[in-house]
Amino acid sequence: MKKLINDANNLVHESLVGLAMAHPDILKVSFDPVYVMRRDAPVAGKVGIVSGGGSGHEPMHAGFVGRGMLTAACPGQVFTSPTPDQIEAATRAVNSGAGVLHIVKNYTGDVMNFEMAAEFCQTDGAKILAVVINDDVAVEDSLYTAGRRGVGTTVLAEKICGAAAERGYDLERIGALCRKVNENGRSMGMALTSCTTPAAGKPTFELGEDEMEIGIGIHGEPGRERTHLLNAREITTRLAETILADLPFRTGDSVIAMVNGMGGTPLMELYLVYQELARVLRSRGIAVARRLVGNYITSLDMAGCSITLLRVEDEFLALWDDPVLTPALRWKA
Amino acid sequence: MKKLINDANNLVHESLVGLAMAHPDILKVSFDPVYVMRRDAPVAGKVGIVSGGGSGHEPMHAGFVGRGMLTAACPGQVFTSPTPDQIEAATRAVNSGAGVLHIVKNYTGDVMNFEMAAEFCQTDGAKILAVVINDDVAVEDSLYTAGRRGVGTTVLAEKICGAAAERGYDLERIGALCRKVNENGRSMGMALTSCTTPAAGKPTFELGEDEMEIGIGIHGEPGRERTHLLNAREITTRLAETILADLPFRTGDSVIAMVNGMGGTPLMELYLVYQELARVLRSRGIAVARRLVGNYITSLDMAGCSITLLRVEDEFLALWDDPVLTPALRWKA
Repeated sequence: MKKLINDANNLVHESLVGLAMAHPDILKVSFDPVYVMRRDAPVAGKVGIVSGGGSGHEPMHAGFVGRGMLTAACPGQVFTSPTPDQIEAATRAVNSGAGVLHIVKNYTGDVMNFEMAAEFCQTDGAKILAVVINDDVAVEDSLYTAGRRGVGTTVLAEKICGAAAERGYDLERIGALCRKVNENGRSMGMALTSCTTPAAGKPTFELGEDEMEIGIGIHGEPGRERTHLLNAREITTRLAETILADLPFRTGDSVIAMVNGMGGTPLMELYLVYQELARVLRSRGIAVARRLVGNYITSLDMAGCSITLLRVEDEFLALWDDPVLTPALRWKA
Repeated sequence: MKKLINDANNLVHESLVGLAMAHPDILKVSFDPVYVMRRDAPVAGKVGIVSGGGSGHEPMHAGFVGRGMLTAACPGQVFTSPTPDQIEAATRAVNSGAGVLHIVKNYTGDVMNFEMAAEFCQTDGAKILAVVINDDVAVEDSLYTAGRRGVGTTVLAEKICGAAAERGYDLERIGALCRKVNENGRSMGMALTSCTTPAAGKPTFELGEDEMEIGIGIHGEPGRERTHLLNAREITTRLAETILADLPFRTGDSVIAMVNGMGGTPLMELYLVYQELARVLRSRGIAVARRLVGNYITSLDMAGCSITLLRVEDEFLALWDDPVLTPALRWKA
């Protein structure tokens, strides 16, 4: 295993120390229990937005903490759910009294621990709502999930709901908005190589030199199909068509399109995939209203990509365009 | 070889099509000859800033085209210098009459081709200045370079000179500024793995499972030393101390610090390295005025990192803080 680390057991801690030192203008980190929060939280009168999950998917979630996006993020150990006490502490820390939305990716441990944390907070009368993101069209159940996994739509939901909180929407309205984002978002990913977790020290799964996995999960969970290597056009078409058929997206729809790298894929290749995706969408009469190309929800050093499409309406777009200032996403700020 | 591409011969072209489609608000791409330019270039009354070099180092340079940074970038084929006609066309296209600064990384082909392009443009009376960046402290001469290679300081020079152009500095003054940035910037990199160029289809060099290369070049050129695997603290200390001793940086200095990923290294590890770097700098009494952590000057899918330190003064910092709006770097915009 080749990694820039000191000790696999201390990797998440040391990385968060670096994050805190690199972005003191945006966020601060609590280490006991561990959570990352907006420097100015709680924000008076505003709903707090809290997400979290296993580490190893950076910049998600801690890289999305800041004005206009997450109020706090709870990073677990690598590919391990955050504990209820982390989530409880983060939720209490950012609650201005206006309540807190939990945005939870659909993995059994995450869902359970966010639920427990919400119950703890609610004993004191705090208003907590949770929305579970389950946008991965690749498989129905999976290694760590009952139902569909939560992936790229999470990034878009965090941006849109964060903007809504900044505008002063109340908790009920932001919860409804987040559910609507989830209902209109679909994703699917693929891997050219496995990731290697620091604790295991070897690839999570084996892929031959001439093989790839379509429909991979962000922890290396099995996908739909293991196939021989395809080119970027074939891969993009396969991912895009599966996504489009699922909602289904229709001629005349507008979307936010995200081409996301899994961590080990050069940006050059992601732009190439974006160009293929744009071609498929144009051929279907679907307009790309906004787009993101880069590493947003990764899987350590895995080579591969995922595509997320969110069918949008005016409200989504206006909130998307609002200012955001986080380590990984920033504009108009 | 596992890459998200269609045809190795068409990779740069297809990737630039994707770049153009993804950022129509910021830039446009000319395909014959190939260059990327600010959407609103030439900018009346303002000096143009043009850089370029082989592809495979994304986001550098095309990802730095936009308001407050590069006016144009000339991407060559992968790890191949752009041709004089590309550079000439880009230079002419962005020249508002106020002249153009060429920021050139010190590789023999780049330097020669930028010089030829400048000569062609000057026959028509255009004012062109070139500054060669040679900040890599790892080795004196190298595979493609006489003297020191140009690496991370290029990113900082492009930001600072781009801001100066935006403020209306004249060409002489921006040229002097760029030379001063180069004189005060030092970098060094390391690799855990080789990159694989699409044309070769196999790793550029061989590294054993328990080996790493200290002082690597961004094309996989040999470094100072091949050693057994070290941990992040040892690696960071070795890179930082070599850089610090070279200028030399002294107690009381302020720096812009960049921890840069080579393309295949997770963000989590880069933040961990940043934390180690901050520790070294603190122990030397050097203040970190600003910092960048992420993938800025990469080497395809290579795993590894580089560190750049730029000794700053008030003018550098003020220009650094000015608004920038490019695909890869944006703030206050």
